[in-house]
Amino acid sequence: MAGVSTDEAMRRAITLAARGLGTTSPNPVVGCVLLDPDGEIVGEGFHAYAGGPHAEIVALAQAGSRAKGGTAVVTLEPCDHTGRTGPCTHALIQAGIARVVVAVPDPNPVASGGAGTLRAAGVDVELGVRADEAEAGNIAWLTSVRRGRPYVIWKYAATLDGRSAAEDGTSMWITSEAARMDVHALRGTVDAIVVGVGTVLADDPRLTVRNLRDGSLAIRQPLRVVVDGAGRTPGDARVRDAAADTWIATTAEVGAGPDGRVDLSALLTALYRRGVRAVLLEGGPRLAGGFLAAGLVDRVVGYLAPRLLGAGPTALRDAGVRTIGEAIDLEVVDVTQVGPDLRITALPRKREG
Amino acid sequence: MAGVSTDEAMRRAITLAARGLGTTSPNPVVGCVLLDPDGEIVGEGFHAYAGGPHAEIVALAQAGSRAKGGTAVVTLEPCDHTGRTGPCTHALIQAGIARVVVAVPDPNPVASGGAGTLRAAGVDVELGVRADEAEAGNIAWLTSVRRGRPYVIWKYAATLDGRSAAEDGTSMWITSEAARMDVHALRGTVDAIVVGVGTVLADDPRLTVRNLRDGSLAIRQPLRVVVDGAGRTPGDARVRDAAADTWIATTAEVGAGPDGRVDLSALLTALYRRGVRAVLLEGGPRLAGGFLAAGLVDRVVGYLAPRLLGAGPTALRDAGVRTIGEAIDLEVVDVTQVGPDLRITALPRKREG
Repeated sequence: MAGVSTDEAMRRAITLAARGLGTTSPNPVVGCVLLDPDGEIVGEGFHAYAGGPHAEIVALAQAGSRAKGGTAVVTLEPCDHTGRTGPCTHALIQAGIARVVVAVPDPNPVASGGAGTLRAAGVDVELGVRADEAEAGNIAWLTSVRRGRPYVIWKYAATLDGRSAAEDGTSMWITSEAARMDVHALRGTVDAIVVGVGTVLADDPRLTVRNLRDGSLAIRQPLRVVVDGAGRTPGDARVRDAAADTWIATTAEVGAGPDGRVDLSALLTALYRRGVRAVLLEGGPRLAGGFLAAGLVDRVVGYLAPRLLGAGPTALRDAGVRTIGEAIDLEVVDVTQVGPDLRITALPRKREG
Repeated sequence: MAGVSTDEAMRRAITLAARGLGTTSPNPVVGCVLLDPDGEIVGEGFHAYAGGPHAEIVALAQAGSRAKGGTAVVTLEPCDHTGRTGPCTHALIQAGIARVVVAVPDPNPVASGGAGTLRAAGVDVELGVRADEAEAGNIAWLTSVRRGRPYVIWKYAATLDGRSAAEDGTSMWITSEAARMDVHALRGTVDAIVVGVGTVLADDPRLTVRNLRDGSLAIRQPLRVVVDGAGRTPGDARVRDAAADTWIATTAEVGAGPDGRVDLSALLTALYRRGVRAVLLEGGPRLAGGFLAAGLVDRVVGYLAPRLLGAGPTALRDAGVRTIGEAIDLEVVDVTQVGPDLRITALPRKREG
């Protein structure tokens, strides 16, 4: 069999990396493919969970002595520090790797510098191969490390006319079971789920990641965060059950913004310090408005049900927009049919000025 | 060249028929392909405008004596009556056509019976070839004839959160120029554009079919209809200009429903009598709600701009829905990106009970 190109190997490494999504936080997802001097794949690995071995170490263990003189193709710049595991740079050097091909440099000041260390040891280092693709696969972690706050995904469900419930408040179910299952998959990729206390009082949601067919809980559950300035979350609210950890974030603990409500920026900073890198913001409409008004939303995922209501609460309120020129502009990056519903994924555009 | 199958010929005939969309009303669109006994195409035609020759006549004129013993492939059952032109059945019989292949039977009681007349004259008739495809191409006309009222397309433009304007009422422009051009193309396919007087008072729209680049008017303009119970349309409103015909539909003229507003069913019957087969309902939100509540909308075309407002008027109000179980269910049949916007086409599902 002919060997594979480093470009091909990077594509494979990116696919491998994605298998860690949802379980590596606060670490990034990383994939690694090792090629021997003939370009044959001799080792593969990905980072599966925080505290577990890094992708490079897994791949090196698989390759053994066949790694010598070969090329390591890695989605993220190998780490250069001793955390819960030793530095990958040393392991690559000790294994006799001649060349390291990297997609994205590590923005984390603690772990970066790997390329320099490798080069100092005589290893050939190439950066930027399939960088956009690898960046997209790690976007939550990269964004969070660059900004020092979690990556925030706002998810909403609404009818085609923008209603999240009927006039009498009923909303079970606006969207289909297929869409709700998709939401549970989305929850499985984040570290925390954030809602306002109004949502807890109105719907008493569980906010867990479940198999909707049999109700079974996923092994790993995101932190449940209730933004609850005055601490009104009832003692018997479902979010307080034992299924997952919960943080009732009050102004007393987090601090208040100018409007007297919980300071959302401070909330995100606190979550980042707790190791949260990706947040799913699930409602209600005013809390979403607060995040959007503050420019704290990185991705919008809307589940649009092909239904019309003509009355009832809207999915979004008070986003700080008074006139059409102030509208929050997005770019649609994906539209997928999920059962009868549409899932629209959009990214906020940079605002001018 | 080998001859084409009647199935292939029907596909071609359906494509030809579509070229008449927007100019044949109150007639249907029709396409015809004539094959000689060897299956060679010897004539093609489509119905281009009301009062002009029917598709079969155009194709026969092109084929001349080569039609003899051949097959006529027609998207709609040939007419059997003398209207502005003679019956197509006679023309086909006189030309010596041996076989007629039809997609959709004619539901119009005045013109139907063509298949029977042809068979009585010894012509072999086959119905139902590519019927679904041909039906879709003629859906507005077929639906209107079956129901005795125009086919109603409700078009709206809104943000992803369902707003049709910002909090201060500004709405220029919610959607992109590409989407607005698409709306003008849609207007070009209907016989009438319907709005409520509130829209006229708020936006003073022209409601014409224009080339947005140079402002030039299309040759054929749909009838402009203002639903205006009490006759409040200003004398200098743009809809009253000379660019197109306009009907200010008052309760005095049309009659009132139980709510005291213009009776929408009576309005549609009156439009049908005027030869209107397809209507584009453009707003406002309450008028759309009235049509939807009465089950008078046949197609929904929503232009969704990837923007968020969080405040401002919604695209739809008062659709007669109180609780989630009463939601007006649609089926999405198409999602197309138009510039940065999404155009979502959906059909109302049959309501139970």
